[in-house]
Amino acid sequence: LDMQFAGYKKLRTPNNLKQIHTEHYASLIADLCLTSRILIEKECEELPLKSLVSGKEYFAYRRTTTSSTNLQTVRTSRPINKALYIRNNEEFASLIECFLQSNYEILSADTITQLLYTIAMSFCVANDVHKTGDKKTPATFFELFVAHLFARQFQAFPRKKIKVPSVENQNAELPTDIIFDLGMGKVKFHVPVKLSTRERVIQAWAHQRVLEGLWGTAEFKGLLIVLTETKLNLDKLEVVEICLPLQWAVYQRYIAHLDRVYYLDIPERYADLASTNPRIDVKPLGVFFGEKDILLAR
Amino acid sequence: LDMQFAGYKKLRTPNNLKQIHTEHYASLIADLCLTSRILIEKECEELPLKSLVSGKEYFAYRRTTTSSTNLQTVRTSRPINKALYIRNNEEFASLIECFLQSNYEILSADTITQLLYTIAMSFCVANDVHKTGDKKTPATFFELFVAHLFARQFQAFPRKKIKVPSVENQNAELPTDIIFDLGMGKVKFHVPVKLSTRERVIQAWAHQRVLEGLWGTAEFKGLLIVLTETKLNLDKLEVVEICLPLQWAVYQRYIAHLDRVYYLDIPERYADLASTNPRIDVKPLGVFFGEKDILLAR
Repeated sequence: LDMQFAGYKKLRTPNNLKQIHTEHYASLIADLCLTSRILIEKECEELPLKSLVSGKEYFAYRRTTTSSTNLQTVRTSRPINKALYIRNNEEFASLIECFLQSNYEILSADTITQLLYTIAMSFCVANDVHKTGDKKTPATFFELFVAHLFARQFQAFPRKKIKVPSVENQNAELPTDIIFDLGMGKVKFHVPVKLSTRERVIQAWAHQRVLEGLWGTAEFKGLLIVLTETKLNLDKLEVVEICLPLQWAVYQRYIAHLDRVYYLDIPERYADLASTNPRIDVKPLGVFFGEKDILLAR
Repeated sequence: LDMQFAGYKKLRTPNNLKQIHTEHYASLIADLCLTSRILIEKECEELPLKSLVSGKEYFAYRRTTTSSTNLQTVRTSRPINKALYIRNNEEFASLIECFLQSNYEILSADTITQLLYTIAMSFCVANDVHKTGDKKTPATFFELFVAHLFARQFQAFPRKKIKVPSVENQNAELPTDIIFDLGMGKVKFHVPVKLSTRERVIQAWAHQRVLEGLWGTAEFKGLLIVLTETKLNLDKLEVVEICLPLQWAVYQRYIAHLDRVYYLDIPERYADLASTNPRIDVKPLGVFFGEKDILLAR
């Protein structure tokens, strides 16, 4: 546990954040992931779950601790997608080399999605079984992980605020989701990151709308990145996926236009939005690495 | 406590919800408020707080309970604005008659704000000192309270969803904040309700934007209703107000136009937005009752 959180703290030190686009930062994430996997293997047992999500199977890890006064605490992780989570350590060890070297060309989109899903979930699951009700640490980790991935791909530094000039005040700044400015004449990206969306998803469209209001519709491409939409019923040990495709369609139609929504564990009902009107391109995150050039084109 | 939550449950029964615009519903709210005040008086002691909010003084109520195993639990309420909360029971008893009869003409805007602040806070405070960390009950109560107030003023029934017709589907519906449709040819209102706003406030502007996208800019007037923006530091017993006026200005400029923001405990930095560009009319809720006709005019 100590190692785990030392690793997490390292991700957030100012000196390391300055290197968020580097292989050094990738190695910090990989260390944290490998420590998490060791903790999970050593301390947890597998808990089968009943999946109510068509075509997907889930399980969880469960950790039981006994205090000095003999009180037992049982902590259950978030649901883990069987087809996406790589459990074999040798297989994972060779794949994480690709992550460290940012060498995605040799991998299929599906394998990239599995690799990135496994990295993200390892830490979240280890944190779930060690700290009850801590939602903030996994959310911050996931944002840093995504910021690293895209910073390295774009070779650009992520920012979290943007100038909001007005006639009366040229220097006002607004806090935002992650922003990538690739430089003079090049595309800019607005990258909101969420562990799951529910009703809060409207924020991604609303922030995109603010950016379009400030700089016009042609400046920022919006890429929403989400881990999963699963929800675990702890009493029944059942997993459901919470999706609101009608709401998304209304937001895409009336608030602003998001270029992509990338999921690590993509819900089928959102993937279907790519063939409806208005179209929303919801895809597995692994697909991004093969279509990056389309997004980089103006 | 039992009485208190019986009263809360009554507010939510389907039969009572159908009468949300009536004096009967007002009497349910008044009963709940009076029970809350008795509980507070009987069980709590006053806790002085240090206010870091210029021009405002705050205190809290604190309740200490001892379990059968002699473990002490101390629960502290949210901060209460001294100038707004009516502590004198006789004064309050005569004022609550105005609430029951919806007779606001004889009261000043300041007195109406005090009366409504006191009703809302009584229940929230009683709930705070009985249930640790329960944010949902006060939020639901406050939404029902505001829905009642406006339903009675507008003589219209609140709705929580709206038709979203498209060429392909005429009957799709979208869940929304409270909507009032005053009938053929009359104004419609969109009334988001929040205990406090922080970063979630963007949802109010984004939903307004969706309504403007669906029905044009002239159909729905947006009235955002908020209780307070105070935050209590429990270690230092200090109260601060969290305000993000620059963000609000950007939302009002680029997302949509809200006609009013009404507060029960209004932050000065938001009130100032009524004289900036873009203008946002942020006012104490008591003012609404005197300017209702302006809002009802097309």
